[in-house]
Amino acid sequence: MKTLIIVSHPEIDNSYTQQFLKRGTELENVTWHELAVNQPIDVEIEQRLLAENDRIIFQFPLYWYSSPASLKNWQDEVLSSHLDLSDKHLGLVISTGLPAEAYQPGGEVGFSLAELTKPFQALAKKFAMNFLPILPIYQFGYQTDREKMAQLINYQRYLTQEPIESLTAKIEWFKSRLAALNSEASTLNLLINELSTEQDRLADLQQTLAMIKMEED
Amino acid sequence: MKTLIIVSHPEIDNSYTQQFLKRGTELENVTWHELAVNQPIDVEIEQRLLAENDRIIFQFPLYWYSSPASLKNWQDEVLSSHLDLSDKHLGLVISTGLPAEAYQPGGEVGFSLAELTKPFQALAKKFAMNFLPILPIYQFGYQTDREKMAQLINYQRYLTQEPIESLTAKIEWFKSRLAALNSEASTLNLLINELSTEQDRLADLQQTLAMIKMEED
Repeated sequence: MKTLIIVSHPEIDNSYTQQFLKRGTELENVTWHELAVNQPIDVEIEQRLLAENDRIIFQFPLYWYSSPASLKNWQDEVLSSHLDLSDKHLGLVISTGLPAEAYQPGGEVGFSLAELTKPFQALAKKFAMNFLPILPIYQFGYQTDREKMAQLINYQRYLTQEPIESLTAKIEWFKSRLAALNSEASTLNLLINELSTEQDRLADLQQTLAMIKMEED
Repeated sequence: MKTLIIVSHPEIDNSYTQQFLKRGTELENVTWHELAVNQPIDVEIEQRLLAENDRIIFQFPLYWYSSPASLKNWQDEVLSSHLDLSDKHLGLVISTGLPAEAYQPGGEVGFSLAELTKPFQALAKKFAMNFLPILPIYQFGYQTDREKMAQLINYQRYLTQEPIESLTAKIEWFKSRLAALNSEASTLNLLINELSTEQDRLADLQQTLAMIKMEED
């Protein structure tokens, strides 16, 4: 499965969040694609990129509760109802300046990211794409180093994991990442920790299942 | 109350709907303001326009379930959290290529205009603006002449009526328009019809009220 990350940010080079995430995208079958601001778009190239990839990610900071203008411009120029995007996956990686609590009724924004992104959900529906759960990145700059690493791993999983949200898929992903890893010890430890947590949870679930099964027999 | 209509359409000159509506905006205290496409924005002029008007209307055709890029670009460039827009009114005039039935669960789009415009609602909330009910214009090209005229009157009311949704306000508006009218007979008849319907409804309501009051006494 090939992934295209379409990044919309008016000042990508100065964005700490985007640069941090970018370093995490040097993965097999993942293409980092920045949208230029106020530059003409080559529609043919963009449409070819869409055709070549199975998972399309729109990645952007929330600007006035939506994407920056460059992504809207890209949509208006590149998308056409004749495009065949069916069965591709559409994901959103959204960074915000406010904490998660702001995005709920009664919060500072008062609307959830799920509500604010209805136009993208309608887009996925229109093209018969599979809309992935949004990956929010709240106040990245305020996170601890450990949180940032965990966020990065989550992000990499979002980009590359087979989109089946099961424990088995998660563990398979962690295993393959471990095998491919040639990294410093802290990341390795973090991955191993996450992996054992998932395996414990799986063991618990299997035990519960066995008990339920016994009671049913 | 002064009204600013910010029109975002990639091809305004070729849009039958926009040209028809534009002819209806030659009203006192109403400013028609087209956003240029791919032109630099003079932020100072735009912010002054916002300051000078009490009712701000975003008018656009639905493009990929949102506004065209020119309006998003305008938002990104012009809006700043330091602007004082509190107690101003924010309205949306949205034209669509699909009928009203498309904009509901199970419909072709599957999302309502109220859902798709959450980012605008969040904007109004942020600036403590009064968010007006959306004025949708579904498939304007398919409407009969009579429906178009009714739509135009509705539109003019949206632009100029005091934003109190009461029968009295409606009737006051119709009366003042009648007094100002210097128009052909068909429009006049339409206005008079609408006015008498409203007055009948008001009389009915007053009678009902009187009956309820009697019963209470």
